[in-house]
Amino acid sequence: MATQPFAPPGASAAAHRTLARLLEPADVVLGGSRPWDIVVHDPRMPARVLAQGSLGAGEAYMDGWWDCERLDDMLARLLRSGLDRRLRTADAIRMSLLALLRNPQGLRRAFIVGRSHYDVGDDLFERMLDPRMIYSCAWWEGASDLASAQEAKLDLVCRKLGLERGMRVLDIGCGWGGAARFAAERYGVTVTGITVSQNQAATAAARCRDLPIEIRLEDYRRLTGRYDRIWSLGMFEHVGVRNYRRYLRKVRELLAPDGLFLLHTIGSNRSVRRTDPWIEKYIFPNSMLPSMAQVARAAERLWVIEDWHGFGPHYDRTLLAWLHNFDAHWPELAARYGERFRRMWRYWLLGSAAAFRARRNQLWQFVLSPHGVPGGYRAVR
Amino acid sequence: MATQPFAPPGASAAAHRTLARLLEPADVVLGGSRPWDIVVHDPRMPARVLAQGSLGAGEAYMDGWWDCERLDDMLARLLRSGLDRRLRTADAIRMSLLALLRNPQGLRRAFIVGRSHYDVGDDLFERMLDPRMIYSCAWWEGASDLASAQEAKLDLVCRKLGLERGMRVLDIGCGWGGAARFAAERYGVTVTGITVSQNQAATAAARCRDLPIEIRLEDYRRLTGRYDRIWSLGMFEHVGVRNYRRYLRKVRELLAPDGLFLLHTIGSNRSVRRTDPWIEKYIFPNSMLPSMAQVARAAERLWVIEDWHGFGPHYDRTLLAWLHNFDAHWPELAARYGERFRRMWRYWLLGSAAAFRARRNQLWQFVLSPHGVPGGYRAVR
Repeated sequence: MATQPFAPPGASAAAHRTLARLLEPADVVLGGSRPWDIVVHDPRMPARVLAQGSLGAGEAYMDGWWDCERLDDMLARLLRSGLDRRLRTADAIRMSLLALLRNPQGLRRAFIVGRSHYDVGDDLFERMLDPRMIYSCAWWEGASDLASAQEAKLDLVCRKLGLERGMRVLDIGCGWGGAARFAAERYGVTVTGITVSQNQAATAAARCRDLPIEIRLEDYRRLTGRYDRIWSLGMFEHVGVRNYRRYLRKVRELLAPDGLFLLHTIGSNRSVRRTDPWIEKYIFPNSMLPSMAQVARAAERLWVIEDWHGFGPHYDRTLLAWLHNFDAHWPELAARYGERFRRMWRYWLLGSAAAFRARRNQLWQFVLSPHGVPGGYRAVR
Repeated sequence: MATQPFAPPGASAAAHRTLARLLEPADVVLGGSRPWDIVVHDPRMPARVLAQGSLGAGEAYMDGWWDCERLDDMLARLLRSGLDRRLRTADAIRMSLLALLRNPQGLRRAFIVGRSHYDVGDDLFERMLDPRMIYSCAWWEGASDLASAQEAKLDLVCRKLGLERGMRVLDIGCGWGGAARFAAERYGVTVTGITVSQNQAATAAARCRDLPIEIRLEDYRRLTGRYDRIWSLGMFEHVGVRNYRRYLRKVRELLAPDGLFLLHTIGSNRSVRRTDPWIEKYIFPNSMLPSMAQVARAAERLWVIEDWHGFGPHYDRTLLAWLHNFDAHWPELAARYGERFRRMWRYWLLGSAAAFRARRNQLWQFVLSPHGVPGGYRAVR
C-alpha cells in the first residue's frame, strides 16, 4: 500500500518530483511506506541523487539522508527498471574517459586495493566471513549455511581442476589462505598463494603454517615457475580489461601444457571499462567487472575454453549471509568503525546482492586448458 | 615404423621434399606406411598442396592423387601441429578479403546452402543419419548407438529449455523435422519449424503430419510471432558474423519475455570471418564458425547468458557414426553419386572429426534469456 509521497517545500520540491517520477517504473515511492519504498530524512537528498547519480545516492545514504527497510529489494527494482542507465551523470562520464586514458590496474597501482580494501581490518572480515575466511561467492547447492556453502565451493573448484595428491597448485589472489588450506588438507596438494594485501599475506602465512603452502605478497606479473593447476577466485575483478590478455598470457606461461586453470570471477552482462563511481570511491578502487566477450576475446590463441558455469544468484545469498554476520557482530566493531562505515558497508553488501538478484551481475567459473584436453574435458558440478 | 619416403624425380621432387618437411612436426610421413602416413598416387600431389593449401589437398584427395588409411588421425595430427596455419595460400587470403567486403550470408544468398548441401539428396541423408534424421552433434553421455545418442541430445535440449505441455516452440533450421517431432511427441508442445531447404521442408512436413507441427520454407529474418521457447540446432554456422546481432535481435523479438532460447552451434577457438576454402567450395557455401567472443559480443544488451556447455568431442564420435553408415550403405548410393563424391564426402566427415579431435573445433550449447531468469537458471546436463 503506497502512501502519499512526502513533498518538501521550495527548490528541493522540484527535485523531489523529478526523482519520484524516475522511480515510478520500478514501483518505488519516495516517502512511501512499503518495505522497498524510500524514507527521506533530509530534503536535499533528491537533488543530490539527481546531480551525482549512484555516487550521490550512496553518499547520501552513508550520511543518513535517507533509509529503506529493504534496501536490497529496492535497489534490485531500480536495476531491473534500468534507472541507473537513465541517470548517467558527469561523474560517471568522467570515469569512463579516465578508464580509456589510463591503466587503472597497472603494476604500480596494483597494491592500492590491497591497502584500501583488504587491509581494512581482519577483525571485520573474521566476523563477517565463514571460519575459513573465503571472500568470494559460495556454492549453495546442497548447503544451508555459509561455512558449508564455502566448503562446497572450494570442493567444486578442486573437483573441476581434478586435483591429485602431490600436484603443485598456484592460487592467484589467495586472500587469507582459506582455499589453499582446504586443497592442501583435502587433496594433498602443494600450494603457492599470492596476494597484494599485507594483512592477508601475514594472516594467510600464519593460518597455513602447518601445511605445504607458501604465501607471497606479490603481483601476478612478477611470478615465475610452472604449476600443474592454477585457480584465481574473485581476483580477476581487479585486473582490468587492459590487462586481461597479459594476465591470461602470464597464467598460461605458469601452467603445465596439460594443466588446467580455473577462473572464478564476477561478470557483467555488458562490456564496460569502469566500475560504479560509488564502488570505485568507497569499496574497490581500480576494479571492473569483465563481460563474457572481454574474457573470451582475451583468451583467444592462448586457451581453449573447456567449461563455463554461471551461478550469480548464489552471490545474492552469500552477500546476505555476510550481512547477517556483520550485523550480528556489529557491537564488537562499532567503536572502531563508526556509524558512517556501518551504513557504507551495508549499502555495499545490499547493493551487490541487488545487482545479482536483478541478474545484472553474474558469477562465472571458467575452466581453461592450453591446448584442449584430449578427448574432452568432463565438466563437474 | 616409417619407411623411406617415396621420392619422385624432377621438379615435383622439390615440392615433395618441402611438403615432407612441413609434415615432420606432425610425425606424418609422405609415402610412409603407418596408418596415419600419406600414400602418394600422383607425383603432382605435393606441388598442388603447396600451391593451394587446404583446397588443393582436398581436391587432390577427391581426384585420387593420394590416400591415407586413417585420414582422421592424420588430419588431427596436422591440426594439432598447426600445419594449416603455416600453409596459408593466396586462395585463403582472397577468401578472407571477400568475407570482409561482402555479406556471404545476406538474405538473398541464404537459400544457396539449402540448395547446394541440404538438397543433395534425402536418400543419402536417410542412410547416413539416425532414424529421426538429426543432422547435428549427438550427446553420447550414457548412449552407445547413434539413434539413442541423438535422442539423448534432443532430450537434453528439451530439458534445458524446461519444455511444458502446450508451449509454443520455434525451431530455427528444423532440418527434416526430427527435433520438432521429438519435442511434440515427448513434451506435448506445438512447434513451428523453418528451413531454407526445399527437400527438408517437404520431408519434414510429411514426417510431422500427424502432430501439431508447422513447417515453413523460410529465412529467419522473415519470421513474426511470439514463442515460449526457441531452439536452433546446427544452423548458426550459416548465419555469418555480420548477421549475428541481427539474428540474435530477431530471436529475442520472437521470444516471450520469460522465455528461453537454446543455441546449439559448432564453435571455433578463434574469431575468424570465413571458413576453410575446401569446405566453402564443396560442403557448406557461405558458412563460418563463430567464436565465443563473437557470440558473446553479439548477445550483449539483448540477452543474459544463462548457460554454456561445450562437448566438441561428442561430434568426433557422431561424425564417425555417420561415416560408418555412409560406408555401409554406399553400394545403394554409388550409382547416383559416383566415386569422386564418395571421396569428397569421406574427406569431409573425417576432416571434421579430426578438427573436433584436435580440439580446434568445439560444440557449444548456449541457453539465453531476455532478462535473466529470476533466482537463476538451473543448468541441466
